[in-house]
Amino acid sequence: MKTIQDVAALAGVSVSTVSNVLNDREARMRPETLARVKAAIAELGFRPNHSARMLKTGHMPMIGLMVPTIANPFFGVLARWVEEAAQARGYGVLLCNTYRNAQRERDYAEAFMAQGVRGVILGAALIAQEHLVPLIGQGLAAVSLDRGTSSDGLLRDSVSVDNGQAGAMAAEHLIGLGHKRITFVTAASNSVNRVARQEGAQLACMRAGVEFDVHVGSTDGDFNENEMVELGCSAAVATQEKGNPATALIGVNDMVAIGLLAGLRRAGVDVPRQVSVIGIDGLFLGNYVSPPLATVAQPMEAIAQAAVEHLLNRMMRLDMEPRQVIFSPELLVRSSTGPAPGSARRGRKSA
Amino acid sequence: MKTIQDVAALAGVSVSTVSNVLNDREARMRPETLARVKAAIAELGFRPNHSARMLKTGHMPMIGLMVPTIANPFFGVLARWVEEAAQARGYGVLLCNTYRNAQRERDYAEAFMAQGVRGVILGAALIAQEHLVPLIGQGLAAVSLDRGTSSDGLLRDSVSVDNGQAGAMAAEHLIGLGHKRITFVTAASNSVNRVARQEGAQLACMRAGVEFDVHVGSTDGDFNENEMVELGCSAAVATQEKGNPATALIGVNDMVAIGLLAGLRRAGVDVPRQVSVIGIDGLFLGNYVSPPLATVAQPMEAIAQAAVEHLLNRMMRLDMEPRQVIFSPELLVRSSTGPAPGSARRGRKSA
Repeated sequence: MKTIQDVAALAGVSVSTVSNVLNDREARMRPETLARVKAAIAELGFRPNHSARMLKTGHMPMIGLMVPTIANPFFGVLARWVEEAAQARGYGVLLCNTYRNAQRERDYAEAFMAQGVRGVILGAALIAQEHLVPLIGQGLAAVSLDRGTSSDGLLRDSVSVDNGQAGAMAAEHLIGLGHKRITFVTAASNSVNRVARQEGAQLACMRAGVEFDVHVGSTDGDFNENEMVELGCSAAVATQEKGNPATALIGVNDMVAIGLLAGLRRAGVDVPRQVSVIGIDGLFLGNYVSPPLATVAQPMEAIAQAAVEHLLNRMMRLDMEPRQVIFSPELLVRSSTGPAPGSARRGRKSA
Repeated sequence: MKTIQDVAALAGVSVSTVSNVLNDREARMRPETLARVKAAIAELGFRPNHSARMLKTGHMPMIGLMVPTIANPFFGVLARWVEEAAQARGYGVLLCNTYRNAQRERDYAEAFMAQGVRGVILGAALIAQEHLVPLIGQGLAAVSLDRGTSSDGLLRDSVSVDNGQAGAMAAEHLIGLGHKRITFVTAASNSVNRVARQEGAQLACMRAGVEFDVHVGSTDGDFNENEMVELGCSAAVATQEKGNPATALIGVNDMVAIGLLAGLRRAGVDVPRQVSVIGIDGLFLGNYVSPPLATVAQPMEAIAQAAVEHLLNRMMRLDMEPRQVIFSPELLVRSSTGPAPGSARRGRKSA
């Protein structure tokens, strides 16, 4: 692992200059020096170790991280970056699986408050967040990783990718390949992100005069690690059993899309020759399935870092106006999408 | 979600009887009643919500969970079950990515102690644990999810699958299919589990008179989510470039094995016709790759529950003799393994 000395040597500055950068004491630094230190940090992949700070102060302040289930690899990646950003600021991370259950979210939030934990990152917010209002009123700082949560009047920041844009980009990629009938595969649960992605895809299809429908898959609600993949797997079969099935499927997230690929393979449907599939999230696993999954990626590390920064700021100044930080998604084209099949070739391989 | 009332109704007992079972007040209960309640809990998949207990006591005691990186889906699954078991006992879980770095483990453990966190679950222990000795001496309770860690004289429990047996089962499955040359693909890091798996596979091959070698893949050490998969992906190519390559590969874990499948596919090698692949762990993702990954599974939920139970016991009685709990692994045959190719067919498709 690289040390602060390595960074100083590469940047041609003193260790204390690097330390100033790491501790946000950059006010009196020349911009060129700052840029050089930051470049050296990036080049070396240097990770500052601030846990010494925890020790000096004699305690480790904490923030909470609530996710539907950490068994979902998407939230594992998120948690990795949240923990890293928090640790770099001397904070520990308390992990909570909410199972998308409002009661469980509130119980945990109350336990946090009782324990002196004053800030929480909400990994996937429920649409209805009334259950958190009293706690926020009592001084709990919250940053949501969903958009559009400021309309309920709560003093709560949000940091997220532009989910509407992500849905639109997925649809527009398929439309550009000539697809005329697109099915959006999602789950029946109240997540702001999912609704935004669906609406974005729908709007893009409407604008292009392309048929759009939504398949709502069901889960057994056990929040096991394979829940989203299984949903996609069954949905794949269901979408192909319809008369005149869509030639392209959008998974509301990559785990669902990975399930779509597996389900289509089992049903003998060729991807992308007969049906194109695209996901949303940019999860690393999409690279290793067959065919590699096209997706609309979100910048997870940047989102996690921004969420931690905003939460720590909010904890210090609870009366600030709520802020929204929105990152742009990025289309990653891989081999799971292709030109829409001509009408002559449109049938399934095995029917 | 099922309630305590549902359990009582199904078991034909009162709610307070169920509550007694949930709170370990079973002493005066008839064995038949206890069995009926436990059966009802299992049948309904009932999860008790003990966070109310956190509130009553006015604080939330905590345990630490150290994993190399929570971005690895294996540790995501583990963390899900650890959090669930801890929460059911009224404990919160502090998450720590160690990046397999002894300094980072110790810094975190010291911060835990300073914060009054008295117990930690070590998700993947380093072979050398001297760095934790002083803290254990000061009263930190630790449960390791590795075997064979009691030989260093530390008062530390371990809960794990029998990793030696898991390695042996993977090798024996391949030997039973007629394979005569087996390569074990692993990573160059000091994990007790990995060494035990490799030794188990090696012994099984020796006993059967089958050629065995080890390919140690390298990683860029960034502990990103795709690290293990990428290792497998490059290793797949490297193993096939050798003269007289093995006809069967064992991945030290499922993430590596998923990478092996992806790498072989890119190299135009047919699995399992030309090369068989098996992993270890039983990670759900193996079901959705192509071909579905054969694996030796470990019972993650049971391991996590036992780890939490043992940790809480150890925290109450630091002077108990160290205990080892070992679970048996289970072979899951899927389509990534097949008969060893006859010598006439042994060549690679593209060479």
